[in-house]
Amino acid sequence: MLLDSVNSPIDLKKLSIEELSALCNELRDEIVSITSKNGGHLGSNLGIIELTVAMHYIFNAPVDKFIFDVGHQCYAHKLLTGRQNLMKNLRQEGGASGFIDPLESEYDCFISGHASTSISASLGIAKARDLNHQNFKVISIVGDGSMSGGMIYEAINNIGSTRDFIVILNDNQMSISKTVGGMSKYLSKLLSSKKMLSARGRISSFLEKMPKKTASIIENFIKNCIGIIKGSNIFENLGFQYIGPVDGHDLQTLLTILENVRDYATHKPVLLHVFTEKGKGHKPAEDDIYKLHGVTTTEKSPNSFGNIFSRNIVELAKNNKKIVCITAAMKSGCGLSEFANLFPERFFDVGIAEAHAVTFAAGLTKEGFSPFVCIYSTFLQRAFDQIYHDVFLQNLPVRFIVDKAGLPGKDGKTHSGIYDIAMFSMFENFHIFVPSNTEDFEEALCFAGSNNDSPTVIRFSKSDIPALKEKYISQSSNTLIINVGGLLSSVQQAIKISGIKGDIFDVFKIQPFDFEKLATIIDAYKYVFVVENGIAGGFASTLQTYVPKKLHIITISKIPVIHDSREKQMENNALGARDIADMLIKTCV
Amino acid sequence: MLLDSVNSPIDLKKLSIEELSALCNELRDEIVSITSKNGGHLGSNLGIIELTVAMHYIFNAPVDKFIFDVGHQCYAHKLLTGRQNLMKNLRQEGGASGFIDPLESEYDCFISGHASTSISASLGIAKARDLNHQNFKVISIVGDGSMSGGMIYEAINNIGSTRDFIVILNDNQMSISKTVGGMSKYLSKLLSSKKMLSARGRISSFLEKMPKKTASIIENFIKNCIGIIKGSNIFENLGFQYIGPVDGHDLQTLLTILENVRDYATHKPVLLHVFTEKGKGHKPAEDDIYKLHGVTTTEKSPNSFGNIFSRNIVELAKNNKKIVCITAAMKSGCGLSEFANLFPERFFDVGIAEAHAVTFAAGLTKEGFSPFVCIYSTFLQRAFDQIYHDVFLQNLPVRFIVDKAGLPGKDGKTHSGIYDIAMFSMFENFHIFVPSNTEDFEEALCFAGSNNDSPTVIRFSKSDIPALKEKYISQSSNTLIINVGGLLSSVQQAIKISGIKGDIFDVFKIQPFDFEKLATIIDAYKYVFVVENGIAGGFASTLQTYVPKKLHIITISKIPVIHDSREKQMENNALGARDIADMLIKTCV
Repeated sequence: MLLDSVNSPIDLKKLSIEELSALCNELRDEIVSITSKNGGHLGSNLGIIELTVAMHYIFNAPVDKFIFDVGHQCYAHKLLTGRQNLMKNLRQEGGASGFIDPLESEYDCFISGHASTSISASLGIAKARDLNHQNFKVISIVGDGSMSGGMIYEAINNIGSTRDFIVILNDNQMSISKTVGGMSKYLSKLLSSKKMLSARGRISSFLEKMPKKTASIIENFIKNCIGIIKGSNIFENLGFQYIGPVDGHDLQTLLTILENVRDYATHKPVLLHVFTEKGKGHKPAEDDIYKLHGVTTTEKSPNSFGNIFSRNIVELAKNNKKIVCITAAMKSGCGLSEFANLFPERFFDVGIAEAHAVTFAAGLTKEGFSPFVCIYSTFLQRAFDQIYHDVFLQNLPVRFIVDKAGLPGKDGKTHSGIYDIAMFSMFENFHIFVPSNTEDFEEALCFAGSNNDSPTVIRFSKSDIPALKEKYISQSSNTLIINVGGLLSSVQQAIKISGIKGDIFDVFKIQPFDFEKLATIIDAYKYVFVVENGIAGGFASTLQTYVPKKLHIITISKIPVIHDSREKQMENNALGARDIADMLIKTCV
Repeated sequence: MLLDSVNSPIDLKKLSIEELSALCNELRDEIVSITSKNGGHLGSNLGIIELTVAMHYIFNAPVDKFIFDVGHQCYAHKLLTGRQNLMKNLRQEGGASGFIDPLESEYDCFISGHASTSISASLGIAKARDLNHQNFKVISIVGDGSMSGGMIYEAINNIGSTRDFIVILNDNQMSISKTVGGMSKYLSKLLSSKKMLSARGRISSFLEKMPKKTASIIENFIKNCIGIIKGSNIFENLGFQYIGPVDGHDLQTLLTILENVRDYATHKPVLLHVFTEKGKGHKPAEDDIYKLHGVTTTEKSPNSFGNIFSRNIVELAKNNKKIVCITAAMKSGCGLSEFANLFPERFFDVGIAEAHAVTFAAGLTKEGFSPFVCIYSTFLQRAFDQIYHDVFLQNLPVRFIVDKAGLPGKDGKTHSGIYDIAMFSMFENFHIFVPSNTEDFEEALCFAGSNNDSPTVIRFSKSDIPALKEKYISQSSNTLIINVGGLLSSVQQAIKISGIKGDIFDVFKIQPFDFEKLATIIDAYKYVFVVENGIAGGFASTLQTYVPKKLHIITISKIPVIHDSREKQMENNALGARDIADMLIKTCV
């Protein structure tokens, strides 16, 4: 195996072009093997192999900085930068993260996980470099899906004439769901240009290394020979030298063009448009546009919150024509595929654009619609200000379906859904549901379907849920456990394990909430525990301001949450059944 | 006065072109008169008078929807829509808000105050209209300053072929500070086009109403006659029909073009590029680019937080070359003018782009710089996710200078700075300062200057601050008042007024904070009050989880905060000296 001999990019640079091609094949096999075992992102990683190899061959990381947008396409990069062993346990405790993480390697120079941040980060690094009179290159690698996020344009607006600043647009015309929008159409138009840099034979004579690297020669070279699309192009209008499109699986062409781009960028910021094929070289991934995005090693249960939502929203929508659904590139992930099929006119995938999604939904309510905004908890943080400014201040009946809340599991720290309770609790006209069981969840959805007076939030995790509701029943015990945010089964088990006769109060709606009433109930108990699936500063600490008795509060405290199974993350935060049981025994016996 | 006879746009439509011109002059005088009395935004409102008159003449509000971006340019609109009396008390209790507010009038159809939201909101309204099979027009009015905000592009990416959807780009090439960036340069290029629609004489023959409004005739008319800039233009590439640039002070031309745009938009979304002059028609405002943005009726005190920051940051920067400052179109407002003059290379105004500003700063720290991100509290909410994802998760030493925190005064609810304590407290590696006096403020700035281990926040209000520090001194009284977030002078006065011998504990740094130690101090008191200049769920509720004694907590509770003097807003929230005194007397006597 060639891969075994590559411990850093230095080793890579010793290989011949034939060996580099062979290495690409090995990387492909390795990535398929790793993801089949550990889950993760398959398609995007297969699509970017040749580009990653070419980048590490032409540039000089870690002196040159690679900043991957989103970062889930980093597997080849990790395998080439001394992390083959860590990658064996991808997304497991002690193994590599599925995203870019500076704590893991000096080759990972800026965190990623959320989309559209890379050009901003790169620009900060490049400006610092210039102030320091240093000389390295800064390269952002951005998927076409990230081009729907507004931050990309905020950053592009600020590139000015920054030198040695390269953006590689990795265009596979497909992000998590199929890419939508005007920018996507525009990129397609560029891709269909006749001057595409793909047929190596046709343009090979132009791809020789230039003899004299004067600015004008390079400029002419690019303008006349490499096939740049002439005329005013969006990226050129905003200050880039646009180069492309280039076939991202043609290794020889990539090497030559990257070398020229590297040299040309000393004069002007460059955007290199590379087109790639998601899942390239792996038949199952090429064929299935959804599976190839994220591979899960376990099947979704029919009793997951996601599936129950999926069924319920369709039923609600059948009976109420004002219900519309909005998502930000998470159609399948948020269980909206069937809704989208049945009600295509009432379904809006706005791309990776959470801020827009929320204000767009607010606009829809103004004309009598009942929008459900379906976004993962961690990504909804991007719309905090829009939730405040456009929804809260106007008290508009936007419905937030907050999926993947709580501990993030194998996706790790960039995907933690633990801030949402604290975030939404700031806005007192919101109805906030944190159901623990099917019955409550369906009741919450039903409420959301018909409440047109104020905003509604329903927040739930990736996990399975018990079908039956755990009602509060006083058993004349002296111990009360208050459960907030879907930890009901942990609490139930903890009571069994500990043998302590504890009562359970399951909080399924945290706002509006009758704190006085719960305070009265609490009064009767000697020991009161609050188990909350979120950070400190949420429900429990508000409750404490209403009761004189000191509550035993357990919240998520080991932050950032490292990638691992959700069960282990629960244990690390003392939220596992065994941990809760231990605390019950320690305190109450 | 013609203005007296205009009680709604219906009255406006009865006027002749000459009368409309005269009305513009009256509006100009009225706006100068109102702002000289009440403060507010002068320049932008003078610049948009003709456009507002023309819009109300051609379109049919409130059936047609006007959505103003930011909304501070709404004065003429308010004066024309039945609110002349309310406008007399602009930004005062009982008077008109300085921004768009649907609670005030049916002509204000979507809130504004924060930038770059209008196209998203408009698109929601337009999609709802289409689903409802209705027929009105939706018109967004966007300043060029707002074009630096990413949400605008997220929305444009989603316009598709939405009919009767018009964006009017009001381009005065200047937002709060001078507009920066690639988009601004691009707009300048469009403005300098030879085909500018300004010289009425030159193109008057083309401006006659078209005899036959068939699609092709209109299309040809626009393409060939009205002087559209041909070739691929950014807005056209993204799906708009671009029309312009048009002189926004030439009423006759505006009327004709708006009429044609209105009719043409039945086929395709239109972006109409209008250029205007900020402060138009009022010499002092035309001359002073800063004053004409916001007019304040009181002068800034040399002892305001802002001025103290302004002096200190320059001194810090003289001694530390790694200090750089970043703002999002708030150079003057955040006291950075002198810094920018002295250290132009170390000053970055990124435009209205808070999310980018934060991640850009995070990038700068990666190469050893010490960035100060200076943004008003309310606007920093826009970067919540970037604060979490790029700063907190990587524990990078970004410094947040959070200006205009606390109650918003006359700017009102869209500008409340009351969420920042709760927001930043979610991230436990942040040092968070809420100084109440000059000495503490300067100590905090000094700490920020040198702390490269973790993020720092310094949060302060618009108000003056006492120079001397109120240290905690036990007087063997039974009453303790804990002050959080700059309310020291209220508390001091309250003690005087009430005659109660109370001790004061001034919390100047809320994180990290030794809650155990304060709990021990609290132990010795019978009555403990916490007065916090922010929402519930901040410092006080965390403190309550550490102490068995029930605290008397006063936080800002009347939300949304209506525009008024800050003093009255304090009283409304029981945070005035008199209110605190009353509570002391009620509780402790």
